Amino acid sequence: MAQIGFIGLGVMGGPMARHLAAAGHSLTVFNRTRAKAEAWVAAHGGRVAATPAEAAEGADAVFSCVGADADLEAVTLANDGCFAALAPGALFVDHTTVSAAIARRLAEAGAARGLRVLDAPVSGGQAGAENGTLTIMCGGAEADFAAAEPLMAAYGKLITRIGGAGEGQLAKMCNQLAIAGVLQGLAESLAFAKAAGLDTDKVLAAISGGAASSWQMVSRWPTMAKGEFDFGFAVDWMRKDLGLTLDEARRNGASLPVAALVDQFYGEVQKMGGGRQDTSSLVRRLLK
Amino acid sequence: MAQIGFIGLGVMGGPMARHLAAAGHSLTVFNRTRAKAEAWVAAHGGRVAATPAEAAEGADAVFSCVGADADLEAVTLANDGCFAALAPGALFVDHTTVSAAIARRLAEAGAARGLRVLDAPVSGGQAGAENGTLTIMCGGAEADFAAAEPLMAAYGKLITRIGGAGEGQLAKMCNQLAIAGVLQGLAESLAFAKAAGLDTDKVLAAISGGAASSWQMVSRWPTMAKGEFDFGFAVDWMRKDLGLTLDEARRNGASLPVAALVDQFYGEVQKMGGGRQDTSSLVRRLLK
Amino acid sequence: MAQIGFIGLGVMGGPMARHLAAAGHSLTVFNRTRAKAEAWVAAHGGRVAATPAEAAEGADAVFSCVGADADLEAVTLANDGCFAALAPGALFVDHTTVSAAIARRLAEAGAARGLRVLDAPVSGGQAGAENGTLTIMCGGAEADFAAAEPLMAAYGKLITRIGGAGEGQLAKMCNQLAIAGVLQGLAESLAFAKAAGLDTDKVLAAISGGAASSWQMVSRWPTMAKGEFDFGFAVDWMRKDLGLTLDEARRNGASLPVAALVDQFYGEVQKMGGGRQDTSSLVRRLLK
Amino acid sequence: MAQIGFIGLGVMGGPMARHLAAAGHSLTVFNRTRAKAEAWVAAHGGRVAATPAEAAEGADAVFSCVGADADLEAVTLANDGCFAALAPGALFVDHTTVSAAIARRLAEAGAARGLRVLDAPVSGGQAGAENGTLTIMCGGAEADFAAAEPLMAAYGKLITRIGGAGEGQLAKMCNQLAIAGVLQGLAESLAFAKAAGLDTDKVLAAISGGAASSWQMVSRWPTMAKGEFDFGFAVDWMRKDLGLTLDEARRNGASLPVAALVDQFYGEVQKMGGGRQDTSSLVRRLLK
Repeated sequence: MAQIGFIGLGVMGGPMARHLAAAGHSLTVFNRTRAKAEAWVAAHGGRVAATPAEAAEGADAVFSCVGADADLEAVTLANDGCFAALAPGALFVDHTTVSAAIARRLAEAGAARGLRVLDAPVSGGQAGAENGTLTIMCGGAEADFAAAEPLMAAYGKLITRIGGAGEGQLAKMCNQLAIAGVLQGLAESLAFAKAAGLDTDKVLAAISGGAASSWQMVSRWPTMAKGEFDFGFAVDWMRKDLGLTLDEARRNGASLPVAALVDQFYGEVQKMGGGRQDTSSLVRRLLK
Repeated sequence: MAQIGFIGLGVMGGPMARHLAAAGHSLTVFNRTRAKAEAWVAAHGGRVAATPAEAAEGADAVFSCVGADADLEAVTLANDGCFAALAPGALFVDHTTVSAAIARRLAEAGAARGLRVLDAPVSGGQAGAENGTLTIMCGGAEADFAAAEPLMAAYGKLITRIGGAGEGQLAKMCNQLAIAGVLQGLAESLAFAKAAGLDTDKVLAAISGGAASSWQMVSRWPTMAKGEFDFGFAVDWMRKDLGLTLDEARRNGASLPVAALVDQFYGEVQKMGGGRQDTSSLVRRLLK
Repeated sequence: MAQIGFIGLGVMGGPMARHLAAAGHSLTVFNRTRAKAEAWVAAHGGRVAATPAEAAEGADAVFSCVGADADLEAVTLANDGCFAALAPGALFVDHTTVSAAIARRLAEAGAARGLRVLDAPVSGGQAGAENGTLTIMCGGAEADFAAAEPLMAAYGKLITRIGGAGEGQLAKMCNQLAIAGVLQGLAESLAFAKAAGLDTDKVLAAISGGAASSWQMVSRWPTMAKGEFDFGFAVDWMRKDLGLTLDEARRNGASLPVAALVDQFYGEVQKMGGGRQDTSSLVRRLLK
Repeated sequence: MAQIGFIGLGVMGGPMARHLAAAGHSLTVFNRTRAKAEAWVAAHGGRVAATPAEAAEGADAVFSCVGADADLEAVTLANDGCFAALAPGALFVDHTTVSAAIARRLAEAGAARGLRVLDAPVSGGQAGAENGTLTIMCGGAEADFAAAEPLMAAYGKLITRIGGAGEGQLAKMCNQLAIAGVLQGLAESLAFAKAAGLDTDKVLAAISGGAASSWQMVSRWPTMAKGEFDFGFAVDWMRKDLGLTLDEARRNGASLPVAALVDQFYGEVQKMGGGRQDTSSLVRRLLK
């Protein structure tokens, strides 16, 4: 069993850390809002760390699941960040969705200290974290991935190494691009069905078995049809991810016309007050 | 066993008629290019009709699977069309993807003669027709649907009545709208993966199990990655369908920004010479 | 002075016919709603015709300014249309914005009867018609254009022959495409200025003198900033024109991504109740 | 006459500094590539500075015209930047197109030292700089603007204070948004004209006098029609500006669907090798 530091106990990190504890590992946890860390320890055991560095002391591996690039930089490279406190050979696995640039920068900074760094963004949302069925896309050295995989198996169901540092993040961007297109197509399909006066349940029954089918269609068409959006993966987070992706495309030269457009449409949903609603709320701007 | 007229023996209609013959029905077939009808009869039996009207004489049911609105009008309402030759109570089932307007017009014209008319566009492509696994979306009266369903079961796997006349066509439009979004999202995702230098097989393995997943992703990502497009549902046909859909939306007030955009992108693919290629060739304009 | 038939006395045709009468020509006018024709004659003289054919009897030239393709077909080729009543050598000039296809069809049908047909859509709006300062884009034979130009000069300021039959309509489509882009750019610029809290008068003063300048910016930015849209060229008409243009592009292979998108956005403005408002109301969907 | 430091002698800054020298001011110039500064001094007099700080010593005003946010930060706030060397009460005017965020940051940092800071991006391109006819959009205090305006008059024709710090940059973004829409509309219009086989000169003659008219139409349609793009404002710079604008909109909530799309289309032009061509080369992707 390993000594593990876990940084960031939000709706994703909290349950992930819980699965690690349940698997028998010893956890020292850090959260920016300390009360959350204390509540977590009260429920699941382990120790509260006052700083990311303290969470890393003596750890075989540190995991992070924070908000964005700046947060990740703060918990790793700042004075009280975990990098300085980790022993050579220790693993550092970041589960935040961030830019490939910072993932590569951490990989380099870690390598300089003998750390083994992986970028490992997840998909599957809060339900995936709670149920331990997350999809994890990893970037980093093959041996480091091999070392981290058994630990991640506590909460991951499909764990794939894409390639070198940053490539986990880039694969996550591919995931979000595919979702953006699926959801806008679904939104237009549903809005058309409603405008045409169709029975949306029958339409779903007819089209969800074939070439138009998608996870989103099967899972979200019924709730979209009813106008229910208070669950799932939030528009605000999707916009953050699309922003990262569009920035990366500016560098690598990929043309993303529909992602760029859908990103603006999500902006319109935010203005409608839907920032915390599920990404399927994209349909709202078509149903006004 | 029924006496059946079948009009239009193309890549879809040909195999559909074959399944009806194989189920024991007697077929009289019509095709604009007579040689095709003769070849079909040589292979599968039945009789060749010189006109759509002749195919309808004495028929319990007539099926059509032709090209577009004008073709459908010609084989039904023209002087030598099948409507005048059908006996009251006979079924007329159209499998062409056409406008809801003409579907409704045929339903009215048929009703005036005592015919029982269904619009019943299909999805599943040539493979679905060959294997008898088509999805069929129907519009028309419930009793007429009940009468036609056992016949359509010869080549249809999932057969759904959406609602009244024209609603089969409208559901097919919903299907194409969902596909347009899925495919553009997939195209952008794949183009991004390539621009980023990722191993596209690994990306597929990582993202095809979750929220980004779709039939198109599972079936088309590998061929898109290899640049193989000479199969499947042709861009020319998709543009026809999107054109019908955008026209209908102009009437019913649905806003279809991405469908309108993807329709133009398919135009760009046509200019690149891809009109006969699978709809997944949408990615070609991003990979130049 | 000429004997002139004028068909269609709406907000455009009414003032155009008035300018012809003021220039000394004898007019026989037809309007679908007869009361409008009677009111026009009461105000400006001339005779009321009971049918388009009657307006054409003995005419040197017939002008039309109606609604759309179907209306134009009705007043020309129907039994009581003007074509059958016109003497060989007479001019027929259509000022309606219609498809290039019907313009070419009328040119052919006219030629078969010895008529000299021009398609001559206008821009400049109601104000241009009232003030006699319309821009007129013509398609037809050079000699026919030369014969019609002095008559059109009564209400046209800039009258250009683009080329053969239908090319006046095609040039009008070019005009509307340019406007669609200008207006959406302007709408986004203004919406951005407001979101950023800028003084929109000062922004206009700063940017309207250079590379961003346009007739629309100079004329419409101030009213857009104030939310005034009850004047000018209506969204409903713009959508009709964009529809014709997108249909034509489907035939000629031009890719029109932003026109297709703006057409959908105009649909959203229609849903907001803005169908009768000026095209600059495109900004409304961004300011909600 | 004033003592002036000028930082950045590129295609814009070089001629601007020349106009200041011609107006009788004493200049000390800095350029990252020192040879450029030496060549400028050889041609126009003044002194070469080894660092931005040196250019600021004893200056009444320092002007900068560099590349992007990072460059501007380097020449102002770095150890050898000009801010530390400027005396209280001195003017600092930045002509670079940068983010509103850095403009505000410099205004704050400057205020803390008693400097009078303006953000003052320009439009009018290289020709405007050479001819001294630039449009200048300013953000900053009214009194500081009043002090700087007479100096900027050496190369500016239309100089407007929009409002407080950063608002010059925000107005420049409005300018670029309007241009993005105009140019895409123009590109679609021209591509349509070509696809329809029209005489593009006649189309321009017909439509450039009315509601579709714009500076870009009058200035760029002829060169677009001939496929000439090797002049003017480069696509690479336009993409930089659109990137800044889209980032700002992400903060202020403006929805910019067409700007986002055109930004991607400019990316496609860059892939075609057009990064250094005029922004009107947007039409190239439609004419393939």
